[in-house]
Amino acid sequence: MSIKSEMINMAKRAKEASEELARLSTPAKNSMLKNMARGILKRKKEILRANERDVKLAKKKGLSRALIDRLTLNPARIENMAKSLREVASLPDPVGRIMKTTRRPNGLVIKKIRVPIGVIAMIYEARPNVTVEASGLALKSGSAIILKGGSEAQNSNLFITKILNETKGLPERAIQLIRTTSRKAVKELLRLDDYIDLVIPRGGEGLIQMVRRESTIPVIAHAKGLCHTYVDGDADLNMAERVVYNAKVQRPGVCNALETLLVHRDVAKRFLLRMIKRLEGAGVEVRGCPKSRRIAPGINKAKEIDWQAEYLDLILSIKVVKGLTEALDHISRYGSHHSEAIITRNKRAAEKFLKEVDASAVFINASTRLNDGGEFGLGAEIGISTQKLHARGPMGLEELTTYKYLVYGKGQVRT
Amino acid sequence: MSIKSEMINMAKRAKEASEELARLSTPAKNSMLKNMARGILKRKKEILRANERDVKLAKKKGLSRALIDRLTLNPARIENMAKSLREVASLPDPVGRIMKTTRRPNGLVIKKIRVPIGVIAMIYEARPNVTVEASGLALKSGSAIILKGGSEAQNSNLFITKILNETKGLPERAIQLIRTTSRKAVKELLRLDDYIDLVIPRGGEGLIQMVRRESTIPVIAHAKGLCHTYVDGDADLNMAERVVYNAKVQRPGVCNALETLLVHRDVAKRFLLRMIKRLEGAGVEVRGCPKSRRIAPGINKAKEIDWQAEYLDLILSIKVVKGLTEALDHISRYGSHHSEAIITRNKRAAEKFLKEVDASAVFINASTRLNDGGEFGLGAEIGISTQKLHARGPMGLEELTTYKYLVYGKGQVRT
Repeated sequence: MSIKSEMINMAKRAKEASEELARLSTPAKNSMLKNMARGILKRKKEILRANERDVKLAKKKGLSRALIDRLTLNPARIENMAKSLREVASLPDPVGRIMKTTRRPNGLVIKKIRVPIGVIAMIYEARPNVTVEASGLALKSGSAIILKGGSEAQNSNLFITKILNETKGLPERAIQLIRTTSRKAVKELLRLDDYIDLVIPRGGEGLIQMVRRESTIPVIAHAKGLCHTYVDGDADLNMAERVVYNAKVQRPGVCNALETLLVHRDVAKRFLLRMIKRLEGAGVEVRGCPKSRRIAPGINKAKEIDWQAEYLDLILSIKVVKGLTEALDHISRYGSHHSEAIITRNKRAAEKFLKEVDASAVFINASTRLNDGGEFGLGAEIGISTQKLHARGPMGLEELTTYKYLVYGKGQVRT
Repeated sequence: MSIKSEMINMAKRAKEASEELARLSTPAKNSMLKNMARGILKRKKEILRANERDVKLAKKKGLSRALIDRLTLNPARIENMAKSLREVASLPDPVGRIMKTTRRPNGLVIKKIRVPIGVIAMIYEARPNVTVEASGLALKSGSAIILKGGSEAQNSNLFITKILNETKGLPERAIQLIRTTSRKAVKELLRLDDYIDLVIPRGGEGLIQMVRRESTIPVIAHAKGLCHTYVDGDADLNMAERVVYNAKVQRPGVCNALETLLVHRDVAKRFLLRMIKRLEGAGVEVRGCPKSRRIAPGINKAKEIDWQAEYLDLILSIKVVKGLTEALDHISRYGSHHSEAIITRNKRAAEKFLKEVDASAVFINASTRLNDGGEFGLGAEIGISTQKLHARGPMGLEELTTYKYLVYGKGQVRT
């Protein structure tokens, strides 16, 4: 079979599966999710063996340490996979929920209800836990999913999806993994808008741009986060230190981590010395603008490219600004509309920042790391959308559904 | 200036305008909309003259009667343009509305609020009133708009956007019309995802497919409506006759008009003879399956291509089916997920139909013509989305916005 007809076949069968999935009851879906969790735990050792093969190959290929870290499974990470499936089982089912009921003057009753999206294609990199989480969220929200993981995780993903597919009652082809690692397969897939309703690319800019260019299917990109925190002249500097440290250090390899710190010149001297000391103590490399280097001469020089960089690493760029306006301009120019924060005690500055910053989540006095489905109370998430359409920010079960209108009439016509 | 740099310039300036638009107050926007309505009325004669030039050219080019009808303006149609602007002014402003407030266990307060989309590109055909309605809806929802109308309406659109742009207080470049009629301009525009947030193509399948293929910007298609009405064995046949007649005849050239009538075999004989007589009385050409032609031998023969046809004209295809299952299968195979209706007194059949049909609006005992923003109580609409993502069905002011999260903290960090 050619790659093209293989992709068409997968997409068609996913569409068929989606019709069955849409009809599943909530208890049936929850019981499948719990069975999947059990299956994952029971076969922990085999998953680890499959993963070892991936890790070995990755090392042989000389892939980066960060990537190998994301790829590598251990018993705790596998237990977390099972846990995430049980968590999805415990969340309320969005399908069938009535969003609004309207009674019109002509007697029509219109119900807007949540329904599954249908078929979702997910294209992602490295981490095998995404395979489990995306499958669980798709199942609970009533959609079929076609997964294209990174080639470096192929053995792990193959084995994990095999386990998921052994679940009793799961419609055949509800969860499919693309077996070939060729880019051609993805390009063919991205043209199948007759069968696939949504593509979620989650990864680097190269991947996102390729998907945007090639896809005739609606795309919700989970792209980069170039997040800023602005420490205002009126900030509580102890709080600022705690929040900035958390945003940069707690987990630097993820999209809501801090990349550039902006500091009001009035507090720059008092704040930066202690902040930089604390960051360097945690192994962070600091790169600063000329003004910040006058305060802390030991730090490296930030170049234009640093303001554009999503480091995803223990590196931070720092810029001293004249005030809120310059901070807003910098964020408007370099920000990626993901997560932006201000630390201030000044209410007007805070409100201006909230209003004018164009990002999925804007924070006053809190860490950008909190832009997360769990932290927002949405439950598990398939990722953080960096687009404005359909879903913005954390994309959980509700955001994985669409709606339709049910209209109850008694013979009404248009006049 | 090359077409490419001209498009980049338009898009950049639209982005700048969108920042001003987002800050406009509701009263300011409403007063501009009312001024626009006055401007349109005051210059009715000039609009008619510009339109006459388009109509003359269209006739010379031998364009279809239906297209010329959609293109042609008259005093009543111009008054309706002004009316639609006043209607948009009277609708509630979605921008800034709080959709949800969440208080998290760690004390974070999270507000989900509606914000403008930013820059919208609208690509459409023929009717000059769309120029006015789209501009009004974009302004009220706080977005800048770039319009690409059909080349056949270029003189009308140029003059209308000139009037709109004379409105006092309107940010410069909030409403822009692409002046060149070349397809190359559109293709360049569709790559400008750095500046444009949403593309709405509204028109025939060729246009929609071109946009899907070329665009790296998110697309919400307003494509075809191949709508069905199924008259069940338990239907009130008087009601069925009224509803079917309305769905087909009241305005055949629009997307929510009826194209294929499905009839349960048990009532086919009783129902079809009178229905066909009434339709033919209104000038409808009827094309039937073999069974319906045994009942009404005078009608034309429906071919496979008829089940796939969005006639947008006084033509109706008819198929006699064994029952609900065959009707559902036919709709699943040929439907365009737009508007589908069942006429029945049987509650179970109705519920099954509502549940299983995958369309933006599914009707029991009502005309598909009612799938409309006004009829649904959403107010004016920019069109009817035939996609599942972001907006499905009538797309009004609310659907022309997105949201962001405002997060109020007291130093919270991620643990």
